[in-house]
Amino acid sequence: MSALRRPQAAWRSRSRPAGLPSRQHKREGQPCYTHERATFSASGQLTRSTLEIRNLSVAVIGAGDYIGAAIARKFAGEGFTVFVGRRNGDKLAPLISEIQNLGGRIFGRALDARKEDDISAFLQEAEHRDPLEVCIFNVGANVNFSLTETTERVFRKVWEMACYSGFLAGREAARLMLPRRRGCIFFTGATASLRGAVGYAAFASAKFGLRAVAQSAAKELGPENIHVAHLVIDAGVDTAWVRDRIREREGEAALKNLDPGRLMHPVSVAETYWQLYQQPRDAWTFEQEIRPFGEKW
Amino acid sequence: MSALRRPQAAWRSRSRPAGLPSRQHKREGQPCYTHERATFSASGQLTRSTLEIRNLSVAVIGAGDYIGAAIARKFAGEGFTVFVGRRNGDKLAPLISEIQNLGGRIFGRALDARKEDDISAFLQEAEHRDPLEVCIFNVGANVNFSLTETTERVFRKVWEMACYSGFLAGREAARLMLPRRRGCIFFTGATASLRGAVGYAAFASAKFGLRAVAQSAAKELGPENIHVAHLVIDAGVDTAWVRDRIREREGEAALKNLDPGRLMHPVSVAETYWQLYQQPRDAWTFEQEIRPFGEKW
Amino acid sequence: MSALRRPQAAWRSRSRPAGLPSRQHKREGQPCYTHERATFSASGQLTRSTLEIRNLSVAVIGAGDYIGAAIARKFAGEGFTVFVGRRNGDKLAPLISEIQNLGGRIFGRALDARKEDDISAFLQEAEHRDPLEVCIFNVGANVNFSLTETTERVFRKVWEMACYSGFLAGREAARLMLPRRRGCIFFTGATASLRGAVGYAAFASAKFGLRAVAQSAAKELGPENIHVAHLVIDAGVDTAWVRDRIREREGEAALKNLDPGRLMHPVSVAETYWQLYQQPRDAWTFEQEIRPFGEKW
Amino acid sequence: MSALRRPQAAWRSRSRPAGLPSRQHKREGQPCYTHERATFSASGQLTRSTLEIRNLSVAVIGAGDYIGAAIARKFAGEGFTVFVGRRNGDKLAPLISEIQNLGGRIFGRALDARKEDDISAFLQEAEHRDPLEVCIFNVGANVNFSLTETTERVFRKVWEMACYSGFLAGREAARLMLPRRRGCIFFTGATASLRGAVGYAAFASAKFGLRAVAQSAAKELGPENIHVAHLVIDAGVDTAWVRDRIREREGEAALKNLDPGRLMHPVSVAETYWQLYQQPRDAWTFEQEIRPFGEKW
Repeated sequence: MSALRRPQAAWRSRSRPAGLPSRQHKREGQPCYTHERATFSASGQLTRSTLEIRNLSVAVIGAGDYIGAAIARKFAGEGFTVFVGRRNGDKLAPLISEIQNLGGRIFGRALDARKEDDISAFLQEAEHRDPLEVCIFNVGANVNFSLTETTERVFRKVWEMACYSGFLAGREAARLMLPRRRGCIFFTGATASLRGAVGYAAFASAKFGLRAVAQSAAKELGPENIHVAHLVIDAGVDTAWVRDRIREREGEAALKNLDPGRLMHPVSVAETYWQLYQQPRDAWTFEQEIRPFGEKW
Repeated sequence: MSALRRPQAAWRSRSRPAGLPSRQHKREGQPCYTHERATFSASGQLTRSTLEIRNLSVAVIGAGDYIGAAIARKFAGEGFTVFVGRRNGDKLAPLISEIQNLGGRIFGRALDARKEDDISAFLQEAEHRDPLEVCIFNVGANVNFSLTETTERVFRKVWEMACYSGFLAGREAARLMLPRRRGCIFFTGATASLRGAVGYAAFASAKFGLRAVAQSAAKELGPENIHVAHLVIDAGVDTAWVRDRIREREGEAALKNLDPGRLMHPVSVAETYWQLYQQPRDAWTFEQEIRPFGEKW
Repeated sequence: MSALRRPQAAWRSRSRPAGLPSRQHKREGQPCYTHERATFSASGQLTRSTLEIRNLSVAVIGAGDYIGAAIARKFAGEGFTVFVGRRNGDKLAPLISEIQNLGGRIFGRALDARKEDDISAFLQEAEHRDPLEVCIFNVGANVNFSLTETTERVFRKVWEMACYSGFLAGREAARLMLPRRRGCIFFTGATASLRGAVGYAAFASAKFGLRAVAQSAAKELGPENIHVAHLVIDAGVDTAWVRDRIREREGEAALKNLDPGRLMHPVSVAETYWQLYQQPRDAWTFEQEIRPFGEKW
Repeated sequence: MSALRRPQAAWRSRSRPAGLPSRQHKREGQPCYTHERATFSASGQLTRSTLEIRNLSVAVIGAGDYIGAAIARKFAGEGFTVFVGRRNGDKLAPLISEIQNLGGRIFGRALDARKEDDISAFLQEAEHRDPLEVCIFNVGANVNFSLTETTERVFRKVWEMACYSGFLAGREAARLMLPRRRGCIFFTGATASLRGAVGYAAFASAKFGLRAVAQSAAKELGPENIHVAHLVIDAGVDTAWVRDRIREREGEAALKNLDPGRLMHPVSVAETYWQLYQQPRDAWTFEQEIRPFGEKW
């Protein structure tokens, strides 16, 4: 069945700029990837020794305990050197231990994503260790206030966290990736990226703004062989915070009997980013929405 | 033909909250409006004495020489007390003279729309003189830089001018209008409100963000009888700045032979705002796009 | 205040094609319009003698008892010759009597809008009497079936009524208007024009399809000085049918205490079309949404 | 690194309906998938014996020489029983031979997708052989005529091919999948699914209509554990037809020096469908756009 699996070899090779490492390496990386998979045991276990090292780095800005951590696990498990940053760097310790114990390569840094110099230094450190292959911006700042109760401080802070810092991350990643014409810059969006709603003037404004940055960047960087994508998570994600909100509003019983189609697991977000990363460059997605099968929309 | 013109009288009266001046006053205001129009001479001239005074104020935040000024002329000509604000208050002098000489009521103030206290004071002054009927946010900040050349200072400043100050204007207007459940808050949008593009990371991000504020506000304030709208100008507007850009890029001849369907006249923007103001409250528009007949889109 | 009211005179004249009646005539028509308004009595009555005749025709395809009838009343009251068509021509009799009794000029025809020849003959008859200035397509076909219960007959019929006949109307109107580069073609849309929903596979498919026709036509005909617009009614309209549905689902009491912000009055739809008609050609709207102030969206 | 790879085991099991084969089988299928991959030789060859048979069928409606054929190869190569249908069944012979020679299971049928009975019989035959796991609707009908030159026959035929037959396919697939609450229904969209354009009244109308069917179906069938997706191909696809168009318009030289970022390879469309198929059900995508890295949008 080889013809079924590899018909694209010929046309793919056309698109590689001479003398440059091709973005298509992602696909050419399949041999090592396959090799690694080949050592899965029948029970799905993988021994440390089989983890193929890629010598490429992935930066996760906004590496919280859920989505950010899941992304880090995924890419570490695929052999990337992972740099994770979050405001309170101490909170990264368990994630780093977990991944290092499994043989993954991961580095954690305290990072205020609203500070230009911090973002720049964080990405440069990743680049310095291994070329920055993927930068994922995942800082959230969900708040809910009626318009008249939204203080200027809240409005500004939500924007700084969810939009301005995304601009800085995208720009700094682009500066590193442009010289070698290769890389991916991904942004985590939300329902509020596409629709304003009662109580969401601040949050939606920041998320709309981030989407505009992503879209402008995608149009500008795509022809430079840099893949920019905006992933719209149109659902609640299964986190402690979301579960607390459900408990508050609907009671403990509601939480116990939670519809399995209601919340999205962070692992699934990470898988989606992995799919985006694997896209061949003649079929890149800029925007993709994901939601649980039971979600009303 | 009276039945053709006024069949709505019955159902309209249903919707007026007891004891409050109804937003429908806009329509009930037609007798004075008609009276005034009745005195147009054959040549379209209107004498000062016929200008019906409405005892309602309109605030224009971002009253530049083109769109902002046209809005001021329109609403002054319809008998409103107009408050115009712009950064450099001195530049308002010719507009104020022009309108005052014609018998209109207008007040100009230097206004930094990015300052919470300034916006608040500006709108309160308008409210104090005559109830604030309409607040129009019209601050622009169009810049064009590639992503990597967009400084953090530019990104922040464009946002402060085109988004943050719009939030402040909308919130402060809402605070004044909510107690009497009446008023209109309108925002000027642009092509970049809906689409990011190469070179527009900063501008589109701010305009997307403003649109989210407007949409959230519309959903929150609509049921309170406050009309929020977002007017998308999907074209170049006929201003000195735009004409200079055309001259630079296409030469003096291009400017001379300018296609009449290419630029939008500021007066037409003002007319569209006037139409939005006249909408009955059972058929409010939140978003409306306008472009010249010859525009490619 | 004449300068406030007529500053656009100069730039408007630029855009008139030599030797052709200008679309801007709509605005130049204001003197007659003003004249007419001047004769409103204090009680809002208008005597027949003042109805200015325009010698322009308006065709309403899908002239039901509510929106279509309201449009007919509005344009007849503004002095147009109105042609109304609906499947069962007999049902037009009361509307025709009403308008004729008030001095309006109106003609009713039985019309199956799904028949190419019928549409063509209907519009040509209007054109023959007075140049066709406005064609409004207002045929609805709202049905609700789950996907698996949607028969091929229903799917096809809904499309024929709500989309295919709209294409025919738009095309035939364009053929009449293109030679003189003047006219308006308006389409009535709905929430389902923009969003599919459970139970609306057939209806949304037809309304999406109609919107595509309108958008393609707008881009093609705009530069030919023909204004195409798509009006999205994002609400229930106050009709007997909608009131029956509310009675069925929520009971007689719900209908009695109907929130005044819930339903849109047909007159308001007609007013919105009138506003679209009045737009100057440097600021045409293609798409405009309207909904009552209390609508959740 | 097993913990990195399989953290989702626990939460996944929650979502499986008792007594029913879970949609999550897709992921549980990974062992066989992995096993198969393990037998890739160094050169990427795969021997026939290793092709794991899935006992699930995939139906491709509109199996042309490019996208449809690529989808068939992909799913056959992954071990599915593939049913391909197109108007001229004889043209399927080379594809069927190719896949059968490689050990794949494939059946071709002449199919007029506009005929309810044909669609129904085609899908039932697939279902009868192996449960219908995926139905992909891929019929195209791209034409370009100005509005006034679009005959009613063209308008109707394009709709029947690109929209009506998609409705039939989606409905019939749903009828087979609903009883076991499992399956995927995918639709191929295009730029014209989202935007009308000059010359595309017929094609855009049909594609808009198809999108509405897909969206309504997604909302209706998602909670029934059936994944409906709409894949928007926002680019030219590398087919003989598209290359002929380029040759016609830009000359032979343009074709020779074709920018590698301009056309999308059919294989990449198939890969995207494969990604959609692999999504866990807590993170399903309804709409996803793909375009080459160099595409202007």
